[in-house]
Amino acid sequence: MNQIIEQLMKHRSIRKFTAEPVSEQMVESIISAGQMASTSSNVQAYSIISISDAQKRAKLMELAGNQAYIAESPVFLVWCADLYRLSEAAALHSRKADQYADSVENLIVATVDTALAAQNAAVAAESLGLGVVFIGGIRNHIDAVAKELQLPELVYPLFGMCIGYPDQEPMLRPRLPLSSVLQHNSYDKQQVTSGIAPYDQASSAYLLARSNGKTSVPWSVQMSKRLNEPVRLHMKSFLQERGFMKR
Amino acid sequence: MNQIIEQLMKHRSIRKFTAEPVSEQMVESIISAGQMASTSSNVQAYSIISISDAQKRAKLMELAGNQAYIAESPVFLVWCADLYRLSEAAALHSRKADQYADSVENLIVATVDTALAAQNAAVAAESLGLGVVFIGGIRNHIDAVAKELQLPELVYPLFGMCIGYPDQEPMLRPRLPLSSVLQHNSYDKQQVTSGIAPYDQASSAYLLARSNGKTSVPWSVQMSKRLNEPVRLHMKSFLQERGFMKR
Repeated sequence: MNQIIEQLMKHRSIRKFTAEPVSEQMVESIISAGQMASTSSNVQAYSIISISDAQKRAKLMELAGNQAYIAESPVFLVWCADLYRLSEAAALHSRKADQYADSVENLIVATVDTALAAQNAAVAAESLGLGVVFIGGIRNHIDAVAKELQLPELVYPLFGMCIGYPDQEPMLRPRLPLSSVLQHNSYDKQQVTSGIAPYDQASSAYLLARSNGKTSVPWSVQMSKRLNEPVRLHMKSFLQERGFMKR
Repeated sequence: MNQIIEQLMKHRSIRKFTAEPVSEQMVESIISAGQMASTSSNVQAYSIISISDAQKRAKLMELAGNQAYIAESPVFLVWCADLYRLSEAAALHSRKADQYADSVENLIVATVDTALAAQNAAVAAESLGLGVVFIGGIRNHIDAVAKELQLPELVYPLFGMCIGYPDQEPMLRPRLPLSSVLQHNSYDKQQVTSGIAPYDQASSAYLLARSNGKTSVPWSVQMSKRLNEPVRLHMKSFLQERGFMKR
């Protein structure tokens, strides 16, 4: 254990923020730390759009699922996987028509690059006493979001991120047993699924405590509900229309 | 600035390790820190396979591009995006045939979850004085790697990660100008591409220094070469065969 691991182990998403502003300098230092994350072959395939315009915030809140904290957080960032910059850089030396930006591989590369940088940024923000929450809901109406932000081809909004000073102290959510997640030398289906039952218990106990006895839906029941919902089925056609994953 | 941001700003990939072993306890603490990263709707859609078997290491090294450090690093982890556990958990309460695990959305969710956890793990490892490097080459022959690791459907190897005590002190690689990466309220193509020319200069200077004057290929030339290479075009059919991104 050390100070850094201690901080990582204390992470919880924050969905209620004080009115205290977060300076632009802080945002820049958070993003700079994000940029230092590893990047596949140095492609740095991401762009971050900070939304300070109140009208635009309200619009994004509506599109992403109406969570008040999207409008209210001091800082709201939209993390975009971005192959546009790369494609323009490459076009200085070769024809765009010869590029493979449209491969599934490059979609994966851009998505991973963005997530690595965002997680570094989240760690940096928390080290400054700030709290964060990722907003996957930004993909609920991804086409409208992309238009609102004037994203060009080969750029897609991956997730949002609210940042601010915490005005709540949520419990830590337990995670799957380590043995269900960490394998040795090959994948052992039995070991992976053996974590489900104990985690159902642990997550039920957590929910019960967090909701003051009101709910305790086991994890596997939540996951069943989630996996049986036809959520964001527009992603495939949206990404293809934007020049991604054609081959 | 604080100790944590200072560490993040000093990240560089390590490709040469001392023989000093990394304890299993350390690996577990690194993975536990990884697990505390944010996860989309708590799906925790990843599995990590630690490869200690020397023969398996040699095989993976061969498949991933023959970098010696894959065989030689004290720890080698394969980070897998994993919807199998989730699908099995959901199947306790509903029919597998009704699940949407095969959507592009769920591929993105699993890929992001894996990357967030891996970046947290990288930060934890570095806080312990260790060095890491991500290995995208694990996708070079992804089908053979999946077979080697006995991965079931709905699991794919996203990247490898070498971990060990650094036996080199590489220079920090400069990143794109902040102004090319951080936008305000909407995407400004002009601003995004304006970073290319100055970064070509900065990255050339870096390469020149690192190679003792031997090479200074500008970033945009490297990117042109990279984007014009038909690399890992098997990803689309591989992922579909494994049950991903069918709709």
